[in-house]
Amino acid sequence: MREIFFLSDFGLADPYAAVVKAVMRQITTGLVVHDLAHNLPPGDLRRASYILYESVPYLPRNSVVLAVIDPGVGSSRRAVLVVGERLCYVAPDNGLLTLAYLQDPPRKVYALENPAYHLPRKSTTFHGRDVFGPVAAHLAAGVEPHRFGPELPVAELVRLPIHLNFGSQGEILTFDRFGNAITTLLATPAHVRGRTVRIRYHRIPVASHYAEVPVGTALAYVGSAGLLEVAVHLGNAHEQLGLITGDRVELVG
Amino acid sequence: MREIFFLSDFGLADPYAAVVKAVMRQITTGLVVHDLAHNLPPGDLRRASYILYESVPYLPRNSVVLAVIDPGVGSSRRAVLVVGERLCYVAPDNGLLTLAYLQDPPRKVYALENPAYHLPRKSTTFHGRDVFGPVAAHLAAGVEPHRFGPELPVAELVRLPIHLNFGSQGEILTFDRFGNAITTLLATPAHVRGRTVRIRYHRIPVASHYAEVPVGTALAYVGSAGLLEVAVHLGNAHEQLGLITGDRVELVG
Amino acid sequence: MREIFFLSDFGLADPYAAVVKAVMRQITTGLVVHDLAHNLPPGDLRRASYILYESVPYLPRNSVVLAVIDPGVGSSRRAVLVVGERLCYVAPDNGLLTLAYLQDPPRKVYALENPAYHLPRKSTTFHGRDVFGPVAAHLAAGVEPHRFGPELPVAELVRLPIHLNFGSQGEILTFDRFGNAITTLLATPAHVRGRTVRIRYHRIPVASHYAEVPVGTALAYVGSAGLLEVAVHLGNAHEQLGLITGDRVELVG
Repeated sequence: MREIFFLSDFGLADPYAAVVKAVMRQITTGLVVHDLAHNLPPGDLRRASYILYESVPYLPRNSVVLAVIDPGVGSSRRAVLVVGERLCYVAPDNGLLTLAYLQDPPRKVYALENPAYHLPRKSTTFHGRDVFGPVAAHLAAGVEPHRFGPELPVAELVRLPIHLNFGSQGEILTFDRFGNAITTLLATPAHVRGRTVRIRYHRIPVASHYAEVPVGTALAYVGSAGLLEVAVHLGNAHEQLGLITGDRVELVG
Repeated sequence: MREIFFLSDFGLADPYAAVVKAVMRQITTGLVVHDLAHNLPPGDLRRASYILYESVPYLPRNSVVLAVIDPGVGSSRRAVLVVGERLCYVAPDNGLLTLAYLQDPPRKVYALENPAYHLPRKSTTFHGRDVFGPVAAHLAAGVEPHRFGPELPVAELVRLPIHLNFGSQGEILTFDRFGNAITTLLATPAHVRGRTVRIRYHRIPVASHYAEVPVGTALAYVGSAGLLEVAVHLGNAHEQLGLITGDRVELVG
Repeated sequence: MREIFFLSDFGLADPYAAVVKAVMRQITTGLVVHDLAHNLPPGDLRRASYILYESVPYLPRNSVVLAVIDPGVGSSRRAVLVVGERLCYVAPDNGLLTLAYLQDPPRKVYALENPAYHLPRKSTTFHGRDVFGPVAAHLAAGVEPHRFGPELPVAELVRLPIHLNFGSQGEILTFDRFGNAITTLLATPAHVRGRTVRIRYHRIPVASHYAEVPVGTALAYVGSAGLLEVAVHLGNAHEQLGLITGDRVELVG
C-alpha cells in the first residue's frame, strides 16, 4: 500500500487534520499517514510550494502527497490528482504544487469529479475531509488514477509565478519559522563564494554557515534545498531586516 | 485493541503530550495513539468541546477519546470515564465533553478513583501523565469500565452552558485558527439562504462558500459540522471584525 | 529495533522535521519514530534541556533520543552519540543534553565523524537531515556505537551552567507554554509547605495545586518533574509577573 504524506494549513489547534486522517483510515484499513507540515500560515501557497520543493526529493517513490491548502474551497477551482514521475499528488489546482513539479515532473492529471470516491454529503468548506482525503485513501489502496475523473492536459495545471533560476536576479520566495528568507536563486557554494547579496538597502555577505559571521549579523548562504537563503546569525532575518515575500534579490560582486 | 484519540492543550513546545504517550505505551504494548489536537489555547474548554463536536462523528466505533484540558488539575474536580453509545471518553469532568454528548450520548459514567490504574506517585499538576493517560491505556487494553471506580449518575456530569439550536438566536461558541467564528446556530444551507447574520454592528450575508463574496469581505455559511460560521474571505473574522467568544448572533431576513 | 524519540526546534510550519523522518525511514525500514516536541523557541537550549529532564524517565530503556536544536550548525561544534545508562542520545554537543545527564548518566561518547553513516552530500545548515537523523536511524537498526566515530572523554561533553539543587537559592530555568516558570530548585511538597518564593519584587506563597489560590493569583508548587514552579492560577506567570529566564529565585520563610 502507498504511504501518504499530508500537508495542510489546518494547524494543531483544530480537529481538521485529525478528522481527515480518521476519514482516510476508515476508508482504507492499515493506511499509513505521515505529517509533512500543518502549521503553515493560512492559505500561504508559496510557503506550501517551498515545503514541497524541499521535501519531495526525500519522500519514498510511489507515495501520495495529500496537500490541502485550499483558500478557494467551494469555488470553481479544480481538484486534481497529479501523477508525477516519482510520486502522486492530491490537491486543489491552485498552484501550490508549482515547485513540486520541478522536482518531480507531472505526467498525467485527472480532475477529481467522480463522486464515488468522495464522502456522500459534501460540505462547501472542508474538501480535505470530503474530497481530497477520501481520494488519497482510495489511491493509496490501489484504485487506478483514471478512475477518479476525466484526464486533463498537464499544460492546464495552475502554476504560481515563481521562477527559480541560477542567475543573479531573483526574489524572496518565502520565510521559514527561523525567519530565514528563502530566495528563488539556485546556487552552489562554489558559485557564490565571496559575493554579496543586495536586498532593499542591505548588502549581505555570502558565507558558508551561520557561525562564520558575528551573532546578530546578516549572512547569505546556499540552503539545504540548494536555494540561496538570507539569515541573521542567532536572529530572525524576516523581522530584523524588515524583509517581505517578493522583495527583489540581487547577487553582486 | 481500542485506538486512542488524544486531545490536549499541552502544545508541541513542551514534553507533556509525548510523556503521556510514552507512559501509555509502556502500560499497553502495541497501543495506537492518534493526535486529535494539542495546540488549543490553554484551558479553553469551549474550543475543546467544539473540537469534539466536529470530530466525534468521524472517529471509529469503540475508540477511546483521551481529553486533557484540565485547568482545575489538583482541585476537587472529578476525573471520569464516560461510556457513550459509540466511543469512550477519559477526561476531567469540567464540561469539555459537553458537545461530544450531543454526538454520542453518555450511557455510563465512572469516577476514576481506583488507584490501581494510576501511576503510583501522583503529582498535583499533571494528571494527564498520572491518571488520565494510564486509565486510557488500561481501557484500550480491555479493562472493563466499572473497574476504574464507582459509577456516577449521568445527570451529574458537568456541562458548559452551550445551547446549540436551530433557531435564529445564538452566540459565538469559539474561533478556529483561520479566525472563523463558529456559532451555536445549527443550520442547513437551504434554511439560511438569502438571510443575514447580525453580530454587534455587523450585518453579514449568508453565502454558500468563501469565494462568493469579494476578498476581504465578511460572509456567513453553514460550516463543516452543520453550525453557522462567520468568516472573512481570505481574511480573519476574529481579528478583522473585532468579535469575541460569547458575542450574540442573530439570523434575520 | 530501538525506537526513536525526536526533539527539535523545526516547528510544524516547515518540512524539516518530516524530511528528517523520511530520510531515517528510508535508511531503516520499519523504523518507529515518536515526536518528543518540535515547537521549541528556535535555538532554546535551556528549554530543550528541561524537556529532556521531564521526559527521559518515561522513555523506554534502549530508545534513541534524537535531539536537534542546533544553532551552531556548520561551525566547529561537535556532533555526538552519547550512550547513557538507559538511553542513547544523538545530538550536537552544545549543552542541550545537560539535564538529561542528571536523569541518565553518560557512559560513553563518540564523535559522529564517520561519513559512512551520513548522507553523501552534506549541507552546512541541515545536519538533522544529513548527519543526526541518518546516525539515529543506523543506531536504531543495530549499528554499534563505536562505529560512528572516535570515542571522546565523557568529561569533555559541553554542559550548560544550570545547577539544579535542593537549597533555597536558584533561578528561573525556562518557561512552558502555559507561562509557568520552571526553576532550578528541586523540592518535595513536604519540604516547601508554608514557605514563600521571592522573585524580583514578588512574594509568592507555596501551594499544592493551582486551585488553592484565587484565579489570577500567583502561586508556587512542586511541578511534575520535582522542580519548584511558579504559575498564575488560570493565567500566565511569564507575562503577568514580568519574569524572564535567569531571574533569581529564593525560597524563604
